Amino acid sequence: MLARAITLIESNAPSHFETAQEVLRLLLPWTGQSIRVGVTGVPGAGKSTLIETLGINLVDHSHRVAVLAIDPTSTVTGGSILGDKTRMEQLSRHPAAFIRPSPTGGVLGGVARKTRETMLICEAAGFDVILIETVGTGQNEITVRSMVDFFMLVLITGAGDELQGIKKGVMEIADAIVINKADGDNQIKAQAARTEYNRALHYLAPATSGWQTRAYTASALTGDGIPEIWDVIRQFHATTTASGVFSACRRQQTRSWLRAVIDEQLQHYFYDHPTVKATLPQVEDAVMNSDLPVMVAAQQLLELMQK
Amino acid sequence: MLARAITLIESNAPSHFETAQEVLRLLLPWTGQSIRVGVTGVPGAGKSTLIETLGINLVDHSHRVAVLAIDPTSTVTGGSILGDKTRMEQLSRHPAAFIRPSPTGGVLGGVARKTRETMLICEAAGFDVILIETVGTGQNEITVRSMVDFFMLVLITGAGDELQGIKKGVMEIADAIVINKADGDNQIKAQAARTEYNRALHYLAPATSGWQTRAYTASALTGDGIPEIWDVIRQFHATTTASGVFSACRRQQTRSWLRAVIDEQLQHYFYDHPTVKATLPQVEDAVMNSDLPVMVAAQQLLELMQK
Repeated sequence: MLARAITLIESNAPSHFETAQEVLRLLLPWTGQSIRVGVTGVPGAGKSTLIETLGINLVDHSHRVAVLAIDPTSTVTGGSILGDKTRMEQLSRHPAAFIRPSPTGGVLGGVARKTRETMLICEAAGFDVILIETVGTGQNEITVRSMVDFFMLVLITGAGDELQGIKKGVMEIADAIVINKADGDNQIKAQAARTEYNRALHYLAPATSGWQTRAYTASALTGDGIPEIWDVIRQFHATTTASGVFSACRRQQTRSWLRAVIDEQLQHYFYDHPTVKATLPQVEDAVMNSDLPVMVAAQQLLELMQK
Repeated sequence: MLARAITLIESNAPSHFETAQEVLRLLLPWTGQSIRVGVTGVPGAGKSTLIETLGINLVDHSHRVAVLAIDPTSTVTGGSILGDKTRMEQLSRHPAAFIRPSPTGGVLGGVARKTRETMLICEAAGFDVILIETVGTGQNEITVRSMVDFFMLVLITGAGDELQGIKKGVMEIADAIVINKADGDNQIKAQAARTEYNRALHYLAPATSGWQTRAYTASALTGDGIPEIWDVIRQFHATTTASGVFSACRRQQTRSWLRAVIDEQLQHYFYDHPTVKATLPQVEDAVMNSDLPVMVAAQQLLELMQK
């Protein structure tokens, strides 16, 4: 049932749109009762393994976990580089877990919309932890940040300056930094990296008001540090719920989402308008040939739209 | 006459809008015959002095030079931190030069629109070099880049790693990097910085197709390197004109500007629509309280707009 509802949401067929929205409308009262966690990091940081280990830990403690992915590259390649079920074999077989690869077909905006709506469906189906995985490309991270409560950056230790490897701006939007693969010979390096990140974090404004982002070490391989990640997320939830920041952020996210959808639909409305569509090329030519001022051209096109 | 036309363009009074656009429409055939140069850099890099020295050099060689500024901070502070006439005293007194501070009143989009239109007016008035000055805030630079042919980044030598001081992404959009204040004791450091920037530029894709961005040293104080900057700009103009890149870029810029204006006016049209305006707060509340799906809300509002 869940999978079918999501398939409906993900469908690009216009005939499915209204049914999908009606399903969503009916389910809305049962949404919102989860903690939404975003997970990002460079390829090779071990995000999937970390998510699987964390997920198994959670289902073992009676949580129900949904793993979704945001990966617009799936549009281009035809296959998703994230959310591949076979990469989370153990978790995907667990009855209290649900894993969904990134929806295909569409630009980041469309993929994001479908992932948001899938998240709501999962919440209505009783999943109380939603993990949204993404690859680090800058824009992806901003998109995922805008739909989750808690945003986690997964890193590994590298050679030389630890701070060089992170894309500028991503540390500023993280609620936790997890240095993964802190096992074996790598443990000491991981501890040193943690210290270095904590020092850097000290100088940044918090991503979430009233919450101090910190760096942690973990090993998806040995399981070390995994329960502690969940403790941090729970503490975050308790702190921000008490301060009112949690619900304020969610309301703000929903409002921004509405504004983004309106912008997108306004553009469709304008550029798909038959008269506008027919006139646009010649108006653009006139503007590019300096025969018509830009403001006048825009006004003329807007008037055509209103007819 | 020029100043009055610009005042009309800069006016926020709706009654002036149509007259201003009619003036622009009549002047359009005489626009486009200049080289448009953007100048950016951190405060203290000596942009204004460099522009003044370059400008005097140009008017002495029979050019007519207009200096405009993009500085949205002028909206906030009430006064402009750029384009202050008194800071270019010598150039501002020259009959072949025209200096206009940043238009006030409005967000970056509005300021940019007015500066673009002022640029066209200046071209119609026979100015063949337009220098557009801006402070480095990231967004400003992108805006200026989108309206000029040649984009110049002004830097000074600092202590330690030279490359640390530049905002990520700005070097990628520059057609030339000028290391200013290359005089006295600073000359050797400036030469070293030039070498370092040239090495870094080697790894970047060119900002303008078919043109290799390079670093140069100059001194606005002694005038050293100033004629060479103009030589570089002329060479750029010749190269890109021959390859067709010059006019292709201008057409592309005009097209993007039209698209941006359309987007802005679509938003106005929607959010100022009386029924939408009256209904938006309660629809937003319903969405934020999970009573209404985002997509349905957006659709309902768009339908109200169409009535």
